[in-house]
Amino acid sequence: MQVERLTELLRAVQAGQTSVDAALDVLRDLPYETVADYARLDHHRSLRIGLPEVIYGAGKTPEQIARLLERLTAANGLAVATRVSAEQAQAVQALLPAALYHAMPRILTLGMAPALPADGPFVAVATAGTSDLPVATEAALLLELWGRRVIAINDIGVAGMHRLLAQRELLTQAAVVIVVAGMEGALASVVGGLVAAPVIAVPTSVGYGASFGGLAALLAMLNSCAPGVAVVNIDNGFGAAALAMRFLR
Amino acid sequence: MQVERLTELLRAVQAGQTSVDAALDVLRDLPYETVADYARLDHHRSLRIGLPEVIYGAGKTPEQIARLLERLTAANGLAVATRVSAEQAQAVQALLPAALYHAMPRILTLGMAPALPADGPFVAVATAGTSDLPVATEAALLLELWGRRVIAINDIGVAGMHRLLAQRELLTQAAVVIVVAGMEGALASVVGGLVAAPVIAVPTSVGYGASFGGLAALLAMLNSCAPGVAVVNIDNGFGAAALAMRFLR
Amino acid sequence: MQVERLTELLRAVQAGQTSVDAALDVLRDLPYETVADYARLDHHRSLRIGLPEVIYGAGKTPEQIARLLERLTAANGLAVATRVSAEQAQAVQALLPAALYHAMPRILTLGMAPALPADGPFVAVATAGTSDLPVATEAALLLELWGRRVIAINDIGVAGMHRLLAQRELLTQAAVVIVVAGMEGALASVVGGLVAAPVIAVPTSVGYGASFGGLAALLAMLNSCAPGVAVVNIDNGFGAAALAMRFLR
Amino acid sequence: MQVERLTELLRAVQAGQTSVDAALDVLRDLPYETVADYARLDHHRSLRIGLPEVIYGAGKTPEQIARLLERLTAANGLAVATRVSAEQAQAVQALLPAALYHAMPRILTLGMAPALPADGPFVAVATAGTSDLPVATEAALLLELWGRRVIAINDIGVAGMHRLLAQRELLTQAAVVIVVAGMEGALASVVGGLVAAPVIAVPTSVGYGASFGGLAALLAMLNSCAPGVAVVNIDNGFGAAALAMRFLR
Amino acid sequence: MQVERLTELLRAVQAGQTSVDAALDVLRDLPYETVADYARLDHHRSLRIGLPEVIYGAGKTPEQIARLLERLTAANGLAVATRVSAEQAQAVQALLPAALYHAMPRILTLGMAPALPADGPFVAVATAGTSDLPVATEAALLLELWGRRVIAINDIGVAGMHRLLAQRELLTQAAVVIVVAGMEGALASVVGGLVAAPVIAVPTSVGYGASFGGLAALLAMLNSCAPGVAVVNIDNGFGAAALAMRFLR
Amino acid sequence: MQVERLTELLRAVQAGQTSVDAALDVLRDLPYETVADYARLDHHRSLRIGLPEVIYGAGKTPEQIARLLERLTAANGLAVATRVSAEQAQAVQALLPAALYHAMPRILTLGMAPALPADGPFVAVATAGTSDLPVATEAALLLELWGRRVIAINDIGVAGMHRLLAQRELLTQAAVVIVVAGMEGALASVVGGLVAAPVIAVPTSVGYGASFGGLAALLAMLNSCAPGVAVVNIDNGFGAAALAMRFLR
Amino acid sequence: MQVERLTELLRAVQAGQTSVDAALDVLRDLPYETVADYARLDHHRSLRIGLPEVIYGAGKTPEQIARLLERLTAANGLAVATRVSAEQAQAVQALLPAALYHAMPRILTLGMAPALPADGPFVAVATAGTSDLPVATEAALLLELWGRRVIAINDIGVAGMHRLLAQRELLTQAAVVIVVAGMEGALASVVGGLVAAPVIAVPTSVGYGASFGGLAALLAMLNSCAPGVAVVNIDNGFGAAALAMRFLR
Amino acid sequence: MQVERLTELLRAVQAGQTSVDAALDVLRDLPYETVADYARLDHHRSLRIGLPEVIYGAGKTPEQIARLLERLTAANGLAVATRVSAEQAQAVQALLPAALYHAMPRILTLGMAPALPADGPFVAVATAGTSDLPVATEAALLLELWGRRVIAINDIGVAGMHRLLAQRELLTQAAVVIVVAGMEGALASVVGGLVAAPVIAVPTSVGYGASFGGLAALLAMLNSCAPGVAVVNIDNGFGAAALAMRFLR
Repeated sequence: MQVERLTELLRAVQAGQTSVDAALDVLRDLPYETVADYARLDHHRSLRIGLPEVIYGAGKTPEQIARLLERLTAANGLAVATRVSAEQAQAVQALLPAALYHAMPRILTLGMAPALPADGPFVAVATAGTSDLPVATEAALLLELWGRRVIAINDIGVAGMHRLLAQRELLTQAAVVIVVAGMEGALASVVGGLVAAPVIAVPTSVGYGASFGGLAALLAMLNSCAPGVAVVNIDNGFGAAALAMRFLR
Repeated sequence: MQVERLTELLRAVQAGQTSVDAALDVLRDLPYETVADYARLDHHRSLRIGLPEVIYGAGKTPEQIARLLERLTAANGLAVATRVSAEQAQAVQALLPAALYHAMPRILTLGMAPALPADGPFVAVATAGTSDLPVATEAALLLELWGRRVIAINDIGVAGMHRLLAQRELLTQAAVVIVVAGMEGALASVVGGLVAAPVIAVPTSVGYGASFGGLAALLAMLNSCAPGVAVVNIDNGFGAAALAMRFLR
Repeated sequence: MQVERLTELLRAVQAGQTSVDAALDVLRDLPYETVADYARLDHHRSLRIGLPEVIYGAGKTPEQIARLLERLTAANGLAVATRVSAEQAQAVQALLPAALYHAMPRILTLGMAPALPADGPFVAVATAGTSDLPVATEAALLLELWGRRVIAINDIGVAGMHRLLAQRELLTQAAVVIVVAGMEGALASVVGGLVAAPVIAVPTSVGYGASFGGLAALLAMLNSCAPGVAVVNIDNGFGAAALAMRFLR
Repeated sequence: MQVERLTELLRAVQAGQTSVDAALDVLRDLPYETVADYARLDHHRSLRIGLPEVIYGAGKTPEQIARLLERLTAANGLAVATRVSAEQAQAVQALLPAALYHAMPRILTLGMAPALPADGPFVAVATAGTSDLPVATEAALLLELWGRRVIAINDIGVAGMHRLLAQRELLTQAAVVIVVAGMEGALASVVGGLVAAPVIAVPTSVGYGASFGGLAALLAMLNSCAPGVAVVNIDNGFGAAALAMRFLR
Repeated sequence: MQVERLTELLRAVQAGQTSVDAALDVLRDLPYETVADYARLDHHRSLRIGLPEVIYGAGKTPEQIARLLERLTAANGLAVATRVSAEQAQAVQALLPAALYHAMPRILTLGMAPALPADGPFVAVATAGTSDLPVATEAALLLELWGRRVIAINDIGVAGMHRLLAQRELLTQAAVVIVVAGMEGALASVVGGLVAAPVIAVPTSVGYGASFGGLAALLAMLNSCAPGVAVVNIDNGFGAAALAMRFLR
Repeated sequence: MQVERLTELLRAVQAGQTSVDAALDVLRDLPYETVADYARLDHHRSLRIGLPEVIYGAGKTPEQIARLLERLTAANGLAVATRVSAEQAQAVQALLPAALYHAMPRILTLGMAPALPADGPFVAVATAGTSDLPVATEAALLLELWGRRVIAINDIGVAGMHRLLAQRELLTQAAVVIVVAGMEGALASVVGGLVAAPVIAVPTSVGYGASFGGLAALLAMLNSCAPGVAVVNIDNGFGAAALAMRFLR
Repeated sequence: MQVERLTELLRAVQAGQTSVDAALDVLRDLPYETVADYARLDHHRSLRIGLPEVIYGAGKTPEQIARLLERLTAANGLAVATRVSAEQAQAVQALLPAALYHAMPRILTLGMAPALPADGPFVAVATAGTSDLPVATEAALLLELWGRRVIAINDIGVAGMHRLLAQRELLTQAAVVIVVAGMEGALASVVGGLVAAPVIAVPTSVGYGASFGGLAALLAMLNSCAPGVAVVNIDNGFGAAALAMRFLR
Repeated sequence: MQVERLTELLRAVQAGQTSVDAALDVLRDLPYETVADYARLDHHRSLRIGLPEVIYGAGKTPEQIARLLERLTAANGLAVATRVSAEQAQAVQALLPAALYHAMPRILTLGMAPALPADGPFVAVATAGTSDLPVATEAALLLELWGRRVIAINDIGVAGMHRLLAQRELLTQAAVVIVVAGMEGALASVVGGLVAAPVIAVPTSVGYGASFGGLAALLAMLNSCAPGVAVVNIDNGFGAAALAMRFLR
């Protein structure tokens, strides 16, 4: 609860305009909404951290996802669920035909997406290889759903440095660069050494054997010799997009 | 090599003002300086990514550190070495009496630190506990050496939420928040849910047993339920400061 | 074997009321029952540790589960099997139509559940997110099957502290608090710092990437900066319920 | 902040007895004390969770430890610092001669320890082997400093079951049993199957090779086949004592 | 190649009874048989280490398994393949109707099993719980196929010590005890402290969460406080049986 | 970009034969080809590192694989995709009937394979067991598709040293030896001690339990006591073949 | 407690020769001796498992070690402490001048060692390299202190197979073979494939980097392709000796 | 034993020139020399794998190192011990004043180093940073002691790509490139994509936190997206040099 709100409320209590019980209720119930008995939607989040609440689809039933999508759309005009499998999506759409499924990033949306700016600051979303696309498009689509301009720069892994260097100008123009890479994740270090903008490194689980589900790329990115590379969880396109939003405020 | 520089060079070659061999030399040698035969100082880094080169002290001999400090000071007016042990520092100071050692953050500097702004945007550097101070001061001192305003908010670990909530206003005013925490590292998630600014989480090796040298805090921060928390390596105050600089451009 | 029982038996032997061979048999065979040749039901457990034996369903055949349910119901009036998949449950119900399957917590019961107290001491079962419900309901249902009052407090993860703080009064009234959380598991630390009751932390495998199947939450909870948080195995709702029972004796 | 306090404060504001600004200050500053600029002592903790704040000595300077001991003693009459090395202790005692060092549990105290009850409920602190004593005595000493009766039962590891079974009666009489064991940590499972009281398992780093600093015992205890064993961090005698205190309220 | 064989061969060469080329061929080709081009059956193994070759079924095609079973049966009268899934077994049986599938231990046999001794030395195969049976029956069946007497002692996990102690006499009579246990694997330590015979500990993957696929039991068994416990790989019933055979020679 | 090409280009610019803009375009676009917007084919790779680009099939859609196969075949006459599942292969073949699927090594090819030399230097591809064949045939087939002579030496694991020693002569004649082994991977050390040629060790995920998906073999090979053994990723037949090509230049 | 002893005791109670209380005391107190309050010496162990109790020196004070050595010598004529550092040994010898320190295996003994048989069955203790000697000599010395004949076969690592093959005859004559190896630990597999006797594999922490303190050798040995290799903990010469004793009964 | 030698020996036996016993002795004893009873020097190694035996200093006593250096020098004219600490070196030099210690690579030599070729094929030893020099110089010095030409290219980490690209021509001219890098080890991937020669990647333990002693670099290198990169153990300059020698035969 922000100090301003608390001050205002206290003043209303002081002025006798609000009773103590009512003030207690406001303090307790205002910022979220209880759905059935299993969820508390954090409508306040957008005011607090600049991002609307997003539904984490994994481990939820289709009924829960549908119910939460409806409530968030009612509040914000647009609702988003991530990590929704094709099976879950189909079941939700049976309940909620207006929901739209984006298969590659496994995102389900309900409601109206915003118009995107044709120019101005943009986020570059770069991938090391084609197999990193599902994670990269999760980040890119979320940024677009939140109204940001995105440019994708795909398949510029360090095994062919000329492909990367040819994109250097575009990379240096970006307000934020999201680097999505599996295997050894070296792209983050190289980009981190080329641009001055914040570089957000997303390790992916692309690889096999001693990649250990993305651990190799994660550790590499955390140990980047380029100074000041931000790392998020493995395959966490959502986290990268949210972090980019914090930078772009 | 930036496109503008390349264009200019090509134009000089076209005009016959520069020979092909000279152009090749420029392309090859311009942006760094070789020191003895063991180091190549990246003077270009500051232009490229907005940060001067910093010497990583661990595993270097006192002679190497002293030599590199001198060359970087000659170029920039101020040189910084991190991860310098008390023993190394003493040996470097024997060679270079003007070097100044900051014991808690283990930083050695040579040259003139910049004046700091008295107000304006600031970086909040928050610690969960007093034992996290060495890492936090590494970040804070570097930011000050790079000319940024810093406010320290210490000992606000989540076991006493009221301590943290009392600092909430200050946290929400920061341009960037660096959260330094060991043990379970939960402070990053709580701060990430309270502020809209970029939150940079630095796990520390404070703890024992199943902390596994900071692994517990690192994994916790990577899995933060607060959206968009940037993570850097364990005990990496330097990385946090560098990432903050990228945000503050 | 308890000293009292042994004393009594020795007295009977001393008095000639029991032969040596009979005493040996009692000592050997009393406290458990052999089922087919693959299981020894520990009917004595309830006397010894205050909890009836529960069947661990994973890796057992439907026939084994059905047989063990029958024998435990015959002894206690109610039998419980945990970690029973939907497929296993269906196969057991074909053999034992009276068995009841609880799909979310994956529990199969046979026999009569006890009546629950309408008020008095209760166990609060709190979840960080909706995806933690299967584990939380395993704990809650078991406690209810063992006759305890439970109040569920769902979706109070630390990314929206106001949701948690609004439930603080309820949390402080509980006799025991079970905190069920995946991802970074920070809820355990925050609750541990708010209440004086025993806090039982259950890490869940909710998450992906560097959650490593719940390892991140487990390590975080083990390293909690709040003093005196009890940790059980990942996804171990059963263990949390059993531990709560020990506290409630 | 508890609802009662908030209600009272709101009533005072309503009655005009307290100004809005004063109320804000109370809400913000009441429960802790800032020491120098590196620590915030949580005097409120004792009211909130039933345990006084304890200083974590690792990674703190002797000056910091001495200063914090003084402030906590001033507030509570007795202050305790854990994980204090012999070197740290000597340096603190140079500053604070009244401080008392307990070498085996590495605890430093200042002030008056409470009298202990001669009988009544007790905590049993059991070790698997003599090498587990440092951790066990950390738990036992803290419980005594907090006014609880403790009985030590040493060297009853499962390789000689008769040693353990001979102590069974004493174990079953305890209000809480703390089991301290390294190597394979099997003692926790066996005790967990013998007694109905809460069993708190403390894995220790006693062992070598594939003990991996206590990981083997930790994992074993988390996977205990005895239902409802509470686990704390490796070598965490402090956590075990704090958890026992929660049970004993 | 044994010294005796080499001596004999050299003598034959010395005597002119064997040519140099023929001797080379013997030295090269004698002890194994090439099947198609993908396998070399080690018929010599039985002479060398006292155990016939066993086919490791995982990762082999049904054709390969069938072919190898035929060749080994031709040589030995009985052939055994382990780690054969139900699907593989069905496909092999389509090619080789005489093959017999043992579903619980996932073993496929072809040919005549030996008669078993009615009394005399026996191997005790003990399980902690019913879910450990697949691994235990792999060990037991192999021992019986190799002509050894086996007694199974099931479900004697340490959470109910009286079940284990009741079997103590039988355990002490065994020539070798194989202990099969998942979760925390404590049974190996307790049995290791009760009997003088070789104790072979087989960790199983029974468990979940921090069992990490049997790692918890494996580490516990390697760190057993009972002296001289032999450990084999997780779920390795075959290895335990083979090790028992070495002891029983 | 090689110095020669750059020199030539600069000369053309100097001579006025090439404009500055055209030169910039050449520098930027020459060495790769953009396919749709998700891939950049590195046609230059063959000139640079002596190996044509190979498509990594895992995580790509059949459409992407088909499109990339076509473009690479157009450029090189032969295109190869690795890690293609049977399902993917079938879907690609529906789009591209000329594509040929090799089931065991999971490789899909399009175009004309080269003729192989009947004698001369060869690569020996040795396996420890039959279950290692899928990885070994990936290496062997790729080498043959790149025009090299390969001799397979299967099932020579160290449990039957005589099988290995019988192949010693063949192994010592090879120009390069690729050793493919799972479980404990000891074959690499033994071969590394027998031959002077480069030994490339490929750990496989053959095994179970504490093999941890090939980690045991990987660590063993990295710690080989035989000097100078080259290790590649787990199951990485492709990497072994590529490394062999570098040796054979 | 064995059935025979219990029967006898019960008979004495039946006959009125022993009172109930006295019988209880016997049952409780017979088999161990309490030393100070920190240890319970298991004198019964020798009868039960055929091995006298051995003091684990790590983590014990010199006073504790000295006291325990005296008590065990009084009971058995010879007492042994393992894992005693040179510093501990010196301090114990100051208290107990008759104690003898064996520096390489870090063993301290008190009392009379037995005479060793000049021929007959022997244990072969083989090392892969000279750096494995401290662990190997721990095993060998303990076996000799327990009266067994030992033959050491050093430095026969698999990188030079001829060194190993030259010792093959000696290895095949041993009653038990203990294989001590660090790095990749391949020696255990090769020996396991050559001899029929029980092979006890002791991984050592010899190595660096990805040896991870002996983990590489441990995993390799657990995954040995030779059937029936017994594994003990890393650097656990004591465990290997104790296991050999079980085989040699 | 090579076939040629065996053939020759058999022919001598056939011709009666060699007795059977003498032939057996040759077969058994020829290729190594026993030193004291703790080592078997593999003089044959040079013939077999093209590299003389090198003494691994870690864990050996100074006496052992000195003795082995003398014997190897007697046989080869030059002997080398690696991983020798400054303390060990000083103690060996007290015994053997002619031994020469190279402090940075921690190598001790005895005897005459060969002359080096002034031109011709060379091995490039590249480091990412100055802190990688100890490992790089271990590789470089060994190669020079084995008579090979080496060119060091230091401090070309990927955070400043222009430093690396400026050395590209030199890198492409090398017969073999050894890449020595800690932290994220990305240099190996970039170099692997630039040159056609064998690239040997040596991860170093340079770094901290989530570098986990070089694990991050090791995993990155094993997962390199550049095809055909050879990896050796962490900090294993010796292994890299030995592997380079195999390529250079």
